[in-house]
Amino acid sequence: MRAEIISIGTELLLGQLVDTNAAYLAGKLPELGLDLHFISQVGDNQGRLAETLRRAWDRSDVVLTTGGLGPTEDDVTREAIAQMLGEEMKTAPELEANLRAFFSRRGASMPARNLKQATLVPSATALPNPRGTAPGWWVERGGKTLAAMPGPPHEMQFMWEQEVAPRLARRFHDAVIVSRTIKTWGIGEGTVDEMLTPLLHSNNPTIGVYAKTDGIHLRLTAKAKTREAAGELLRPLEEQVRATMGGSVWGVDDETLEQIVGRLLKERGYALAVMESCTGGLLASTITDAPGSSAYFKGGVVAYDNAVKMAHGVPAQLIEAHGAVSAEVALAMAEGIRRSLGAEVGLATTGVAGPEPLEGKPVGEVHLAVATARGGQASRALYPGTRELIKRRTATAALFLLRRALLES
Amino acid sequence: MRAEIISIGTELLLGQLVDTNAAYLAGKLPELGLDLHFISQVGDNQGRLAETLRRAWDRSDVVLTTGGLGPTEDDVTREAIAQMLGEEMKTAPELEANLRAFFSRRGASMPARNLKQATLVPSATALPNPRGTAPGWWVERGGKTLAAMPGPPHEMQFMWEQEVAPRLARRFHDAVIVSRTIKTWGIGEGTVDEMLTPLLHSNNPTIGVYAKTDGIHLRLTAKAKTREAAGELLRPLEEQVRATMGGSVWGVDDETLEQIVGRLLKERGYALAVMESCTGGLLASTITDAPGSSAYFKGGVVAYDNAVKMAHGVPAQLIEAHGAVSAEVALAMAEGIRRSLGAEVGLATTGVAGPEPLEGKPVGEVHLAVATARGGQASRALYPGTRELIKRRTATAALFLLRRALLES
Repeated sequence: MRAEIISIGTELLLGQLVDTNAAYLAGKLPELGLDLHFISQVGDNQGRLAETLRRAWDRSDVVLTTGGLGPTEDDVTREAIAQMLGEEMKTAPELEANLRAFFSRRGASMPARNLKQATLVPSATALPNPRGTAPGWWVERGGKTLAAMPGPPHEMQFMWEQEVAPRLARRFHDAVIVSRTIKTWGIGEGTVDEMLTPLLHSNNPTIGVYAKTDGIHLRLTAKAKTREAAGELLRPLEEQVRATMGGSVWGVDDETLEQIVGRLLKERGYALAVMESCTGGLLASTITDAPGSSAYFKGGVVAYDNAVKMAHGVPAQLIEAHGAVSAEVALAMAEGIRRSLGAEVGLATTGVAGPEPLEGKPVGEVHLAVATARGGQASRALYPGTRELIKRRTATAALFLLRRALLES
Repeated sequence: MRAEIISIGTELLLGQLVDTNAAYLAGKLPELGLDLHFISQVGDNQGRLAETLRRAWDRSDVVLTTGGLGPTEDDVTREAIAQMLGEEMKTAPELEANLRAFFSRRGASMPARNLKQATLVPSATALPNPRGTAPGWWVERGGKTLAAMPGPPHEMQFMWEQEVAPRLARRFHDAVIVSRTIKTWGIGEGTVDEMLTPLLHSNNPTIGVYAKTDGIHLRLTAKAKTREAAGELLRPLEEQVRATMGGSVWGVDDETLEQIVGRLLKERGYALAVMESCTGGLLASTITDAPGSSAYFKGGVVAYDNAVKMAHGVPAQLIEAHGAVSAEVALAMAEGIRRSLGAEVGLATTGVAGPEPLEGKPVGEVHLAVATARGGQASRALYPGTRELIKRRTATAALFLLRRALLES
C-alpha cells in the first residue's frame, strides 16, 4: 500500500519550524506495512493545498495530513479536502456540542469562528482530539483513505496512537516491514557499495547504504506477512553482509559508539582517562553522553596549552623535538593522563582543528593515541571540513582506536 | 519568483532523519525575494524523483534539491535531472581530475563508483564542493533555474553560501528581504512577547519571537527594493527593541555566546580555565568551537572522579561537608582550576545530569561558579529534560555567568 504525508502550514515554508510531524509519522508507517512514497509541505493556501491533496489522492492509497485544522481563517485543510472530494461541509451537531462543552469546561464561551471545527463532509467521520479543540477527519472513499490530524505534535501523536494507527491496522492486513541497521567503520561509501553490489539488487529484503559521522550504516529491510517471517528474510542477508564486511562491523540498530566502548571497558574492569587538544573537550563530552559513564570514566584534561600537557607527563623536549601535533606527543599524552589520573587506559587527541594551520601542519591533520599497561598505539588522519566537523571526526576516530585496543586486550 | 525545494533520500521517508536542509534553505530564500511554494521529500527512486522534478520544473521558477549526489547506486539525483531534461550525462575531465586529486590527497585511490560524481549534462555547470567529493549542479534552461546540492548539511550550507545564493541574487533583482536577529537571555518568551506587543503588529518590518537554548531570539525582517532601503526600515525598529529589552540583549545575527565570551576575555587580556563535572567536557568543547580560542583558553579538566577535583585544589572536607553537587564545591572548583592552570578566570560546573539522582540531589540540579582574582560567584539551577539537554543547558548557563562576571570586571 502506497502512503503519502502532507504537512500543512506556512511557517514550514518560512524555515521557522522543522517538520518533525512528518518524521514521526514516517517512522511509524513501516510497522503497518505501508510504503511511504512522498512527503510534502504546503502553506496555508487552499488552492495549492487542494492541488497537492488531489495528486496525493490519485497516486496513493493512504494520505496523512497534519495541520490546518485550527479555527482561524488561515486554517483551510477541511475546506481543501472538501474541494478535492467535491463534497459539502456541514456542521455536525454532536461535534458542536462537544466543542461548546470543551469551552464551558474552561469557563469560556465558544468564539463563533471555532464552529468550523465542528464540520464534516459526507465521506468523513470525526477523530476525537481530547488534547485540543480540533477533531481530525477520517475519510474513506473508493478504496482510498485519508486521515487529517492537527499540527501540534502532542495532539497529533495522541490522535495517531489512539485513532489513526489502529484504524489503519484494521483496514490493511497487508504486511509488516522490519529493519536492521548494521554499522561499519573504516571503509568508504563507494567501496562498501562495490563490496555489496551482488546483494544490492534484491528487492525483498533490501539494503540501503548511508554515510554517517560514525561510519557507513547498512539498513536491511524486509517485508512479510508477520514480524517473524520478515525476521526470517533478514537473517540470511545479515549473515552475508557481516561475512562481507567482516571486522568493520561495530554495532547494530540504536547502539552508539560511546555505549559500546563503555561496555567493553566495564567488561574488562578498566577505568578510562583522556587528554585532548584539538577536540577541545568533545571527546570527553561524547564519552559522558553514555548514561552510567561515571562507572568507568575517571575524567579528562583539555590541554590547549602545552604547559597543561607537560603538567600531565608530556616531556617538554618531546614537544620541542616533534611539535605538539605529532604521534610522539599523542602517545605521551595518552600515557601521561593514564598515569596522572590512575586509570588502566589513556586516550589522547592532538591536531589542527583550524581555521589556521599550526606548526606548519595543515588544518585537519590529527594524531590519536591509546595507552594501556601493555604499551601504546597511535594513528594519524587528515580530515576535511569545518572546525566543528574536524573535532567530531577526531573524537569518533579516537573512540574507534580505543575500541580496537580494548578488543585486542 | 516561485521557488520549490526537493529533499532527496530514502532515510527521510523512514523517519530516521529530520529534514533540516529544507528548513535551512526555506529560511534563506526570503532575503533573495523568492517565494517558497512547496517543499517535498522523495526517496532514492529515479522514477519518482524524475516525476517530482518535472512537476517542480513546470510550476516553479527556481528548484533547489539536496541529497542524492553521492557515489552509490542509491544516489540518482543526477540521473533523474538528466531524465527530466532529456539530456545525456557525460564525464567532465576537469571534474574527474579534481576528484582523483581529492582521493590522492588522502592517500587513497578513487573507487570506480565515484566517477559518476564527475559527470554533467549540457545545461549544467558544476558547483564546487571543497567540503566533499560531490560537486553540485547549476542548471539554467528556458528561464528556469535548478541547483542540485549535496545532502550533508555542512557541505550543502557551504555550497549555498559560496555558490548558489550569490548566483540566485545576480539572476533575480526582485524585492530584497533583510533580517536582523537580536539575541536575549534571562527573560521568558511570554514576557518578551508582552514587552514587545506594541511593536508586534507592524507589517514591514516584522518581528518574530523564537525560543532557543541560548535565550529568546527576536528576528526583525524588512522588505524593500534594495538592501539599503530595507536597512533603513530596520534601523529604527532595532533601536526600539534594544531600548525595550535593555541589558538582556547579548548578541546579534550569527554571533555565538562562545565567540562573545572569547572577545570579552581577549579585550581584558584574561586567560580562561574550566573544571567541569556534569557537563563532562561539553563546556570546554563549546568554548573551543570558537575559532582562535587557543589565544585565551588554557584548557580544562573533566573531573568526573572526586579524586580529580581534589588533585586540582578542591578540599576533600568540602566535598564531605557539602557534597560534590553544591555551590561550595563549584566555587572551589572554579578557584582551584584558575590557580592550577595559572589563568585569570576559572569556570566550573557540577550537577546531576542523570538518569540517576546523586547524593540525594535530583536529576537536573546544577551548580555553576566563576572565579577571578577578585573572588568568585556561584549560581544554582534545576533543569528538566534529558541527559544531553541538561548538559547543554548547564554549559550555556555557565557561559552566561562568565559573561556577566567579565562585564562587571
